[in-house]
Amino acid sequence: MLTTAIGTDLYSEVQQFYAGQMQLLDGGAFEAYSQTFTEDGEFRHTPGREPARGRAGIVRELREFHKRFADDPVQRRHWFNMIHVEARDDGSIRSTCYALVVTTRPGDKPEIAPSCVVHDVLVRQEGALLNRSRRVEHDQL
Amino acid sequence: MLTTAIGTDLYSEVQQFYAGQMQLLDGGAFEAYSQTFTEDGEFRHTPGREPARGRAGIVRELREFHKRFADDPVQRRHWFNMIHVEARDDGSIRSTCYALVVTTRPGDKPEIAPSCVVHDVLVRQEGALLNRSRRVEHDQL
Amino acid sequence: MLTTAIGTDLYSEVQQFYAGQMQLLDGGAFEAYSQTFTEDGEFRHTPGREPARGRAGIVRELREFHKRFADDPVQRRHWFNMIHVEARDDGSIRSTCYALVVTTRPGDKPEIAPSCVVHDVLVRQEGALLNRSRRVEHDQL
Repeated sequence: MLTTAIGTDLYSEVQQFYAGQMQLLDGGAFEAYSQTFTEDGEFRHTPGREPARGRAGIVRELREFHKRFADDPVQRRHWFNMIHVEARDDGSIRSTCYALVVTTRPGDKPEIAPSCVVHDVLVRQEGALLNRSRRVEHDQL
Repeated sequence: MLTTAIGTDLYSEVQQFYAGQMQLLDGGAFEAYSQTFTEDGEFRHTPGREPARGRAGIVRELREFHKRFADDPVQRRHWFNMIHVEARDDGSIRSTCYALVVTTRPGDKPEIAPSCVVHDVLVRQEGALLNRSRRVEHDQL
Repeated sequence: MLTTAIGTDLYSEVQQFYAGQMQLLDGGAFEAYSQTFTEDGEFRHTPGREPARGRAGIVRELREFHKRFADDPVQRRHWFNMIHVEARDDGSIRSTCYALVVTTRPGDKPEIAPSCVVHDVLVRQEGALLNRSRRVEHDQL
């Protein structure tokens, strides 16, 4: 049987958190995105790539990664869905969800790739959710 | 830090509202869709196009817009996701979400386009949520 | 007017249930997936196909259906969204949602098809949600 009684406040809060967080990322607000991680947060967005560590490290990694879009007027949108949330005994929250990246270029239809699974550990600090870690796995690419 | 404590009842209610509302639209129930707006509601589904105003105006606009599908046995599905909800001091609710339109024609794979951002102002009347306005922005088309 | 006050606990719980359930299916855990149905649960995933009945029947049907992927290193992901939940007088829950199947093969972009509408009847047993029935309709294929 699936454990579904996880506390409904938490479930909606995680959804709201993801929406705000990814709208920041897709808007290019890398500093603000990094603030959604803990001070020592870890972020690995691509398999085989070394995780970025700490907020300054996350900003650096995002600037580096986004250089490929420097001359590319692309709009990216991160879609998270099918979120499964588990509250852990230590107060942290494990969240596992599916993700798709929707990429639109002028005059083109959106391209939807890759399909990913996101493995997050979230913690609460001063009332707000923050990512302690995020590990993104890509489906067979 | 992201404000995530928005009241969980509200968050789920907005999701339920969107599901019901867009299932009406995708089912061609334009009258019923228009009833999900306030009497003086504004609806702008395409950038550069004049917004439809009022329920009768919204029905007219939808009938007009859907003429293009008159001889086209198309099934459209509106997907809203990554919903970010803000309760405002005046009692209204600002909701910003991502949207994709999934279009299926007989014998074809679905086409998924465009990628949009939906900017809604919702209000509560007699206990129910209604759109006071909806403005849809398209990603670079 | 749309009924949106469905009980927020229930709405989040259905989302959590779907996430857990479909992560099981996409992970190939057919036995565990069948346990998310009632003992006498009905599951019809493809129009025109006879529904599978009972947990053993569901496992058999899934094994049979997945033979087509035996030599195909495919990763499938089921996306459910736009979930509309109705609590019924008899204690059951009617849930209607949109679904997309995201399929990734090595070296390829994901293919997203078909677009579906899922019609579920859920019941609560010993505190947990279970599918009493699931009927999946495909958009015009």
